[in-house]
Amino acid sequence: MKFGFIGFGEVSYTLSKILLSYGFDVMTSIEGRSDKTKELVNSIDITVLDSFEDVSSESDILISANSPQSALAVALKYGSLTDGLFLDFNNISPNTAKQIENYISDEHFIDSAIMGRVSSDKLNLYFSGRKAEEFVERMRNYIKGHDAPEDVEVNIKVVSDEIGDVSKLKILRSSYTKGVSALLVETFETAEKLGLDDELWEILALTENRDFETSSKSRISSSKRKSKRKYEELVEVMEFLDGVNKNRKSKIMAIATKDKFEKLKNRKGRK
Amino acid sequence: MKFGFIGFGEVSYTLSKILLSYGFDVMTSIEGRSDKTKELVNSIDITVLDSFEDVSSESDILISANSPQSALAVALKYGSLTDGLFLDFNNISPNTAKQIENYISDEHFIDSAIMGRVSSDKLNLYFSGRKAEEFVERMRNYIKGHDAPEDVEVNIKVVSDEIGDVSKLKILRSSYTKGVSALLVETFETAEKLGLDDELWEILALTENRDFETSSKSRISSSKRKSKRKYEELVEVMEFLDGVNKNRKSKIMAIATKDKFEKLKNRKGRK
Repeated sequence: MKFGFIGFGEVSYTLSKILLSYGFDVMTSIEGRSDKTKELVNSIDITVLDSFEDVSSESDILISANSPQSALAVALKYGSLTDGLFLDFNNISPNTAKQIENYISDEHFIDSAIMGRVSSDKLNLYFSGRKAEEFVERMRNYIKGHDAPEDVEVNIKVVSDEIGDVSKLKILRSSYTKGVSALLVETFETAEKLGLDDELWEILALTENRDFETSSKSRISSSKRKSKRKYEELVEVMEFLDGVNKNRKSKIMAIATKDKFEKLKNRKGRK
Repeated sequence: MKFGFIGFGEVSYTLSKILLSYGFDVMTSIEGRSDKTKELVNSIDITVLDSFEDVSSESDILISANSPQSALAVALKYGSLTDGLFLDFNNISPNTAKQIENYISDEHFIDSAIMGRVSSDKLNLYFSGRKAEEFVERMRNYIKGHDAPEDVEVNIKVVSDEIGDVSKLKILRSSYTKGVSALLVETFETAEKLGLDDELWEILALTENRDFETSSKSRISSSKRKSKRKYEELVEVMEFLDGVNKNRKSKIMAIATKDKFEKLKNRKGRK
C-alpha cells in the first residue's frame, strides 16, 4: 500500500513518520516548495518524486494536508489523478467536504482528521465516508502482518459512512474550544483589572481539573434544571460587570451567557 | 472561641460539623425554622439557644449562611448584636458586601466564602477584610493546641484586607463556569441534532482533561496571538451553524465568541 502526500507540514510529517515506522511506502514531491519544506522532507526517509502529478498517479492512498483555503483546489487538481483513495486532512468545513465529494465521489474520497494533539508518539485519527471502514480494515490487516513500532499509539475511529461527519465534529470542537477561550480571555481581563487573577486561577483549578466529561455533563443538566436561579445570578453578574467596565464590548461572552440562560429559563417555563 | 450560626443549611451544617470536630463551641437557634432545618440541627451535637438574638450576643464569631437575598437583612438585624466578628458566607455581590461593611464596619465584618465543593472532608475557605488575617491566625493558634480530626482537610486563604474581594472572586468564578455551561449546552444541542454527540464527547475529552491552568493559559495566549485566523475560522463556524439552524437564539454563545474574536483581532490591528 503506497501513500502519497500533497503538502508537507506538521500533519504530513507526523503521518509520514508513523507510516514509515510501520513499513509502508511513503512518497511526496518538493516541486515548487519552500526551503523549509524541502528540509523537513529530507529529514526523513521518504521517497521524493519529480511532481505532485507523479505522486498522485502512483499512490494507493493520496493524502491532502495543506490548508483549509487550498483544500478544494488540491482536490480538484490531484484527486482525479489517483485510482486509489483521496484523504483530506485540511480541517475543511462540512460544506467544502460536500463539494469535494461532488467532484471525486465517495468511492474515492474519505473525510479525515487528526483530533487532539498532533504528535508522533500518540495520534487519534477520525474518518468518515462510504469507503472509510474498508480503508481502516485494510490498514489493520496490513499492520497485523508487520512488526508494530514501539512507543507509538495510534487510535483509529470510523465515525460514519457520511462524508462531512468528520468535518462537522472538527468544527463543533472548534466552536466549543474557542468559546471557552473567549470566555477565559474575558473573565481574566476583568480579574486582572481587579488584581485578582492569581486567586481566580487557584479557585477555578479547585473544580476545573475534575474529569471533563463527568463535570461538563453535570453542568449541562444543572443549567437546564436550575435555569431560573442561574439566570437571576447572571443578572447580578451583569450588574457587577457594568460597574467594572461600562463598555459592552468587554463582556460579549457574559452578555451572551446571560441571554443563553434567559432562553433556557423561558423554554422551561413554557413546558 | 464560640461560633454562632444564623441560618442552617448545607454550608452551616458542614462548617459546624468541622468546627465541632476541632473542639470549638458551636451554637444556633431553631426559632421559627422549618421541620427540615430542625432535623438537620438535631442531627449534630450543636448547642441550641432560644433565639438568634441570643446566638448573636453570645458568639465570638457570628456566621451568616442563608441566601444572597436575605444577607443584608440578617447583617442589619444581627450584625450589631455581636461584639465579635461577623462572617458572611451568602455568595453576596461585591455591592452587597460594601453595604454590609458600611453598616457593621470592617472592624467586625469579614467577607467569606467556600470555594469549590462543600464537603465535610475537604473545604477551601477564603476570607477578605481588615480583620481576616487576625481571625485566621486566631483559628490556627487554637487548632495548634488541639488534636486535629482525621480525614478532614481544611485549606484557609486570606485574599486581601479589602471587603468585597472574596465576593468579586466568587462572582468571577460564577461568570466563567456559567459561560462554559452555556457553551456546552449550545454546542451539544447542535451535536445531538447532528447525531454526533457521543463522538464529540470522546473528541473533547482527548484535550479537555489536561491540566486546567496550563491549557487555559495557553488558550488565552494563542487566542490573542492568532486572533485574525481564529476569527476567520469562526466566520466559517457561523456559516455552518446557520445551515444547521437559522434561529439566532440557538447560537448566542457562538455569535458572542465570534464577536469576541473580532474585537481581539481589531484591537491587535490597532497596535
